[in-house]
Amino acid sequence: MARGKLIESEEALIQRYLRPLAAGFPGAWGLEDDCASLRVPPGEELVLTTDAVAAGVHFLADDRPQDIAWKALAVNASDLAAKGARPIAYLMSLAFPSPPETDWLEKFADGLKAAQACFKMTLAGGDTDRRRGPVAITITAIGAVPEGRMVRRATAGPGDMLFVSGTLGDAALGLKLRRTPELAGRWGLKGREARLLVGRYLRPVPRLALRSAILDFASATIDISDGLAKDLDRLCRASGLKGLVRARDLPLSEAGRKVVTRMPKLFGDVVAGGDDYEILAAVAPAHAASFAMAAAAAGVDVTAIGALEPGRGIAIEGHDGRPLRLARLGWDHF
Amino acid sequence: MARGKLIESEEALIQRYLRPLAAGFPGAWGLEDDCASLRVPPGEELVLTTDAVAAGVHFLADDRPQDIAWKALAVNASDLAAKGARPIAYLMSLAFPSPPETDWLEKFADGLKAAQACFKMTLAGGDTDRRRGPVAITITAIGAVPEGRMVRRATAGPGDMLFVSGTLGDAALGLKLRRTPELAGRWGLKGREARLLVGRYLRPVPRLALRSAILDFASATIDISDGLAKDLDRLCRASGLKGLVRARDLPLSEAGRKVVTRMPKLFGDVVAGGDDYEILAAVAPAHAASFAMAAAAAGVDVTAIGALEPGRGIAIEGHDGRPLRLARLGWDHF
Repeated sequence: MARGKLIESEEALIQRYLRPLAAGFPGAWGLEDDCASLRVPPGEELVLTTDAVAAGVHFLADDRPQDIAWKALAVNASDLAAKGARPIAYLMSLAFPSPPETDWLEKFADGLKAAQACFKMTLAGGDTDRRRGPVAITITAIGAVPEGRMVRRATAGPGDMLFVSGTLGDAALGLKLRRTPELAGRWGLKGREARLLVGRYLRPVPRLALRSAILDFASATIDISDGLAKDLDRLCRASGLKGLVRARDLPLSEAGRKVVTRMPKLFGDVVAGGDDYEILAAVAPAHAASFAMAAAAAGVDVTAIGALEPGRGIAIEGHDGRPLRLARLGWDHF
Repeated sequence: MARGKLIESEEALIQRYLRPLAAGFPGAWGLEDDCASLRVPPGEELVLTTDAVAAGVHFLADDRPQDIAWKALAVNASDLAAKGARPIAYLMSLAFPSPPETDWLEKFADGLKAAQACFKMTLAGGDTDRRRGPVAITITAIGAVPEGRMVRRATAGPGDMLFVSGTLGDAALGLKLRRTPELAGRWGLKGREARLLVGRYLRPVPRLALRSAILDFASATIDISDGLAKDLDRLCRASGLKGLVRARDLPLSEAGRKVVTRMPKLFGDVVAGGDDYEILAAVAPAHAASFAMAAAAAGVDVTAIGALEPGRGIAIEGHDGRPLRLARLGWDHF
């Protein structure tokens, strides 16, 4: 395969591809300084998170650069979304094993530009390195909430209902299709359906639209990045409660339902697949109707999937009424 | 070599080694949430920077874990120091090619603890991944300055004097000694002197003590991470000025002077070696005496090394009075 033109220096990479992404943020100083500065509006506090994505772990090396960029920012914005935060800006650390091609960089910057516009956040600073290993993008995202209002994991109460946004498992199935396109036929999927699942893997959409619903009505939240089971377990541990979920109530897309109807084993991907980037919210019963209505008003479907009670751990009731046994809880990096 | 006990999970790593580092920062929520929260004191604004260090690029894979940790935080704190910022907290993204040994992690956490105490900043959040390639630590550091007071690179004026803190070249020479210990003999260094140079490479000390001097008297600043020549060039470009520096005025440690007296070629390491983590400051002549006195009061030596004038680029006057020619300006990652 012919190699395209390589970027000639770190400086050129910053000037040509990154600087335009910082244009809307005065405190980025055109990426010409060691640091960014950020003034926080009175009455607000900052919400900060960091997440890295690397080729071979969070995306495939031959994914489109636009999609890689989108995902790198989306997974961070999803953390902000879960906390009810309004995105503001981000810092980005890039690692390349060899000087990247200008064509790749251009598309990568295009993907960031699209994601920035969609999530309403701006590049504020960064760092670029060359090192062995996969291409890796480490982003620190900065958002804001009204003072003292960040919705946490640890603050769910016994009796709270559990809600989840959107549909589960699509991205995990999409990754399988991305790796083995022939599965589409075996799963009985139309081209459009297969593309929808793959798209859910490549371009997760952080549920920023749920901000008001979360801030006003949720008692605890987490974004589902490592699979429902694992992230529910985290919320339960942090809150000191037990989570009960009914398999039959988990929301599936039409394509996802088609796949698990034909291949029931793949229901594991719905429960523990990861990469969903949906929101899991604990909501007091008194607020449940308001939460669902606020979500609907924001254009996001939410589904009641279970409840929290005193105790520890999680239990998932299978379609047959018996406890579901999971081979693993979800994604662990070690 | 016998392998030690490996860490069993991401969760264990966080709970056992990282969580204690977040103890002093309420907004870290014990590292149990997706995000950290941070309230900014009235009248202050935040200063943010991100820098990654990776084995084989910024440190050697067999460096002591304590030193690796120290350096990862120090290079970020150095950026804050240059801007006159008070450090507050940091987020850390860790990448390991295989599960690390508990012994390594314990020492790594010790190094972070020591650096935190010295720089007065606390772990607020993070991310841990397993991926191919070298161990890499990406830190985003957060500091604060009085509103509108961050000292920038781009705000130097013509006629400003150039000051540099501490001594230059020690770390670059120290890296050579770290790689080839026999050089100490060839360079005529005592054991103590060689250790001092290696220590400057392994444990840079960010010049946080210069905060008041910088905030009150500097017109522009940058920390010297990629070598004096390159970082001076950056300050000059950003400010639209030309930098003139005299080689004979560059501050060298006793050990550094001994080396370059014997091996004059190594003066290149003083000018373009990198890893100094000293501060380069432009100071208006009217403030020069006050700047130097404030620095002295803070226990930091600063040396006048040249000046800025209208024009572009940088010029270094050699010991013979003729312009110094550099093989390269400094470190570039591509």
